[in-house]
Amino acid sequence: MAEFVYDIRDLKFIIKEWLNMEEIFNLEKFKDNYGMDDIDLILDEAYKIAREVIFPINKEGDRIGVKFENGRAKLPPGYVEAYKFLQENGWGSANESLASETAMPLTLYRAYNEMFIAASPALMSYVKLTTGAANLIYRFGTDKDRKLFLENMLSGKWSGTMCLTEPNAGSDVGDATTRAYPTDDPRIYKIKGTKMFITGGEVDLGENIIHMVLARPEGGAPGSKGLGLYIVPKIWVNDDGSLGEPNDVTCIAIESKMGLKASATAMLSFGENDNCRGILVGDPPDSEGRSKGLAMMFHMMNESRIGTGHNALAQMAAAYYFASRYAAERIQGRPFTNPKAERVPIIKHADVRRMLMEMKAQVEAIRAMVFRGFYYLDIAEYSKDREKAARYRGFADILTPLIKTYASETAWQMVALAIQVHGGVGYTEEYPVSQYARDVKILSIWEGTSFIQAMDLVGRKMRMKDGLPFASWLDERKEFIEQNKDADGFVAEMRKLEKAYQCVAEIKDIYASYYANIAEKGELIPLYALRVLTCCAQLFAAESLMDQALVARRKIEELGVNHHDYTYYAGKITTAKYFINNILPNVYMLADQIKEADKSALECPEEALVIG
Amino acid sequence: MAEFVYDIRDLKFIIKEWLNMEEIFNLEKFKDNYGMDDIDLILDEAYKIAREVIFPINKEGDRIGVKFENGRAKLPPGYVEAYKFLQENGWGSANESLASETAMPLTLYRAYNEMFIAASPALMSYVKLTTGAANLIYRFGTDKDRKLFLENMLSGKWSGTMCLTEPNAGSDVGDATTRAYPTDDPRIYKIKGTKMFITGGEVDLGENIIHMVLARPEGGAPGSKGLGLYIVPKIWVNDDGSLGEPNDVTCIAIESKMGLKASATAMLSFGENDNCRGILVGDPPDSEGRSKGLAMMFHMMNESRIGTGHNALAQMAAAYYFASRYAAERIQGRPFTNPKAERVPIIKHADVRRMLMEMKAQVEAIRAMVFRGFYYLDIAEYSKDREKAARYRGFADILTPLIKTYASETAWQMVALAIQVHGGVGYTEEYPVSQYARDVKILSIWEGTSFIQAMDLVGRKMRMKDGLPFASWLDERKEFIEQNKDADGFVAEMRKLEKAYQCVAEIKDIYASYYANIAEKGELIPLYALRVLTCCAQLFAAESLMDQALVARRKIEELGVNHHDYTYYAGKITTAKYFINNILPNVYMLADQIKEADKSALECPEEALVIG
Repeated sequence: MAEFVYDIRDLKFIIKEWLNMEEIFNLEKFKDNYGMDDIDLILDEAYKIAREVIFPINKEGDRIGVKFENGRAKLPPGYVEAYKFLQENGWGSANESLASETAMPLTLYRAYNEMFIAASPALMSYVKLTTGAANLIYRFGTDKDRKLFLENMLSGKWSGTMCLTEPNAGSDVGDATTRAYPTDDPRIYKIKGTKMFITGGEVDLGENIIHMVLARPEGGAPGSKGLGLYIVPKIWVNDDGSLGEPNDVTCIAIESKMGLKASATAMLSFGENDNCRGILVGDPPDSEGRSKGLAMMFHMMNESRIGTGHNALAQMAAAYYFASRYAAERIQGRPFTNPKAERVPIIKHADVRRMLMEMKAQVEAIRAMVFRGFYYLDIAEYSKDREKAARYRGFADILTPLIKTYASETAWQMVALAIQVHGGVGYTEEYPVSQYARDVKILSIWEGTSFIQAMDLVGRKMRMKDGLPFASWLDERKEFIEQNKDADGFVAEMRKLEKAYQCVAEIKDIYASYYANIAEKGELIPLYALRVLTCCAQLFAAESLMDQALVARRKIEELGVNHHDYTYYAGKITTAKYFINNILPNVYMLADQIKEADKSALECPEEALVIG
Repeated sequence: MAEFVYDIRDLKFIIKEWLNMEEIFNLEKFKDNYGMDDIDLILDEAYKIAREVIFPINKEGDRIGVKFENGRAKLPPGYVEAYKFLQENGWGSANESLASETAMPLTLYRAYNEMFIAASPALMSYVKLTTGAANLIYRFGTDKDRKLFLENMLSGKWSGTMCLTEPNAGSDVGDATTRAYPTDDPRIYKIKGTKMFITGGEVDLGENIIHMVLARPEGGAPGSKGLGLYIVPKIWVNDDGSLGEPNDVTCIAIESKMGLKASATAMLSFGENDNCRGILVGDPPDSEGRSKGLAMMFHMMNESRIGTGHNALAQMAAAYYFASRYAAERIQGRPFTNPKAERVPIIKHADVRRMLMEMKAQVEAIRAMVFRGFYYLDIAEYSKDREKAARYRGFADILTPLIKTYASETAWQMVALAIQVHGGVGYTEEYPVSQYARDVKILSIWEGTSFIQAMDLVGRKMRMKDGLPFASWLDERKEFIEQNKDADGFVAEMRKLEKAYQCVAEIKDIYASYYANIAEKGELIPLYALRVLTCCAQLFAAESLMDQALVARRKIEELGVNHHDYTYYAGKITTAKYFINNILPNVYMLADQIKEADKSALECPEEALVIG
């Protein structure tokens, strides 16, 4: 089996040399617990865990998958143990959750967590969901709820889930039909309905599963505004914290999926015997039947959507690293420019280099975007400078759909390249890359499809607060360009970046004009939304890499070309150049298409579009 | 289970209304056996077989896969029966093989065969390999060989394989180390070596398996020119046609693959006990140790590579059709321009339409390319007009790498869209689209990777015969543009097509200059080869759709807008417009990149490119 390797150097570059981590460590929330000196120790130890504890269970987990018998799901070998190891030793939810006093900055937590995801995406889905459920209880539950649930969730004794989707309400969660009926106790409701695609909905990870369930209270308003949020333990938790009766939550099925086979995706029935109790989170419905259930769930949305992008990044990165090592070791063919020479490792072939470079550029660009996102979230959440916090909240809001969608869509292309570099063996399950292809595909769908993200961008993020945050975000791009347009060695690249900036600025105006004339132009808004998102994402990605290249150049000037880190920094510079010359031009092409506004996709007769 | 549907209308359009099939049916080889009147009958019956015989075994075949025990492979339920049904009833090799007197034109055979592939890619791999092996024996074997093997192969009694790849010789087949030792009988050699990735290398399809094996005769020259070709039956065939002793061919393993799980991909050991006999095909090595084994195998290369592209097309088409039906039926969300309205089928959402349109455009464009390829092959093989035959052979040579690579690379994007249209259920194995994603990925690797195809284009096809065939191919593109540039309703699209043509013409000159100055520019040749290929492919694809749109417009003028076929033709017109406005501009972007010739992928330090 190929050994798990990861680019810990790039992670360290991001949080030690690129982002202003001092600023984050100086925040009240963190300053007593973490500092710059901890970074190497934490990352090095986590890398060891990823290699020795997590990656070894990944392939068998995929092969064996989750077994479902008599309503019980059994995880593949090693999953429960690895989960407990992470949670009990404080490598999981306890380091991430808002509920934890010693939680790390997201920027730091996510740096090591990325290696864990790369080592087993399925395993880490359980940690993520438990953290998410705990965060909801922490943020919106009562003191009693916190006391009853949080400690056991963060320590790995219990796991958690989020229950939104129903068979007839997926993207359109507002159409959910699960109901909540009041009881004599104003905080207790009887829950009845079916939820599907529940990650960890039925697992043997711990003694209990705490479901966070969206349901419509009796008399609730229609649509998403009528949905309430309920804590629904699989086994009732008594007031003294002991476990009570089973709570009438039944697992109907575990989905058979293309990938993530060690992640138990459950269909759950709540209240089949009218005996499922849920604890209301937040206020009961107001006089017009409105509840804040969805709003509460969406409160965590930035983090979980950026997290989904991060998940995609971790997987494509791992696939790239495996491919890079394979390319360095596999001997095949002779140099194009010297066909009489000895056979060479395939990395000597130009197209293999191109593929590796493409992966490296996308991986490092997306990693840069993702960590800027987490950085903004850390500041927004904990900075006392409320103006800055608000500004960064706005940036995080804007980046969220870009990261989620650009990462998950790009991952599909990158894992294909990783397979391609491997040739025939890449298609076999003996090598690890095909599993990443299968595991990663869900990420463009869950946490809101790419289209939902694109509409979030053009319909909300570009327009919120009269468009000021987006304008301010664009100004920051412009400022970077103005400051660096004469940067030595990068003048051509900076010119291309500027052109991409102008494209996005123009797109912003075009979309504003569509919204101003929605009767005539409205249909173009969703038609080109995903292309708008891609343009924004690639502009930001290119700038982020360019910014890193400037840091790398300074480092080279400082350390000289004989320093052991020279190749890393030199690679960073070529990576930025590659991205700007070979990937960024896509923005110009898409911008032209947005301007031309061809409507053939709308004009095609539906009968011609649907076959059979 | 979703029902299998296929766009039989588009297949009929291609061979009844678009290509000049009369010309093919008038060829000596076909004129007594087939005519225009047979098309509907054959396609309709084949569609029925695809739906009723083939598709029903596809999902179970994927789930159960090939079982390998005690050296024997067992296909999943229904595979042997379906194979025999096709072969015995003349729907398989007997209709395709050169060896068959009643073989159909490829253009006709492939039209119905496409539906079979779409219904079960794994099943059809066995038919394809058997045909390929039979073609080799027919073309290069002796009368005795033909008599001993062909009838049983074409009738489904025996199956066939092609054995090229070895553990250390994949893309670089010339490094094969399997040996052939002469015996007293000058036509019989002892074979010794290991071959891998042999489709159907060990199966229970029939009583015998006929392996066509590349091996280096003792004293053979190094590299590909030293390789000979041998018929190696799994069970020896006596001179009277009866089966003799087992021939010392051992299956060591069946690969566990990402997809195509019902296709047995074997690793075979020949001559473990020094008792494996092979029959020499063609001449023994000449005085310099040169044999024509690889040349013989490559003789079938155009057909098999275009066939690989066709395979990719069939799969992405099926995935699109499933997605289109799902989009028409699945109710979710409300119209963007009228959010208070009732929920609608998701096809009403602009981005879903865009995804369907993208799939339709790519599918129909690639199908058009593929069938022009088969059309050229039919004429090239059988026309008495030798000048025309040679010209079309040249066109087929040029199209082969374009089709193989553009189809297989595009398929990966298209199946992702098909999954995306399905949302979460697309990721489950309950729906058929994720299987296509897993099945289709191998096609960018086998029969020569995308890079090999790209180098075949720029290194051989653009340069063969002093570049005349490629120039003539380009002239044909130009001629189409000149003839139709004022076509009513398409003026803007024709202008874009012309721009793409100019890009390709310029690229041709750039590459000629690289070859003229290989010392300085040589490294750019492989670096941009795949992009050159994509430009050529998209130009040809766009023109093919445009040509179809012109036919469609004539049909509409003829039949009027109330004719039941109107929506089909109207769809054809919007499809051409969509492709040209939304896909073709990629050519301009890539052409700019080729011109700019950024070398960062070559300049990046190898240490920075390889992680771990």
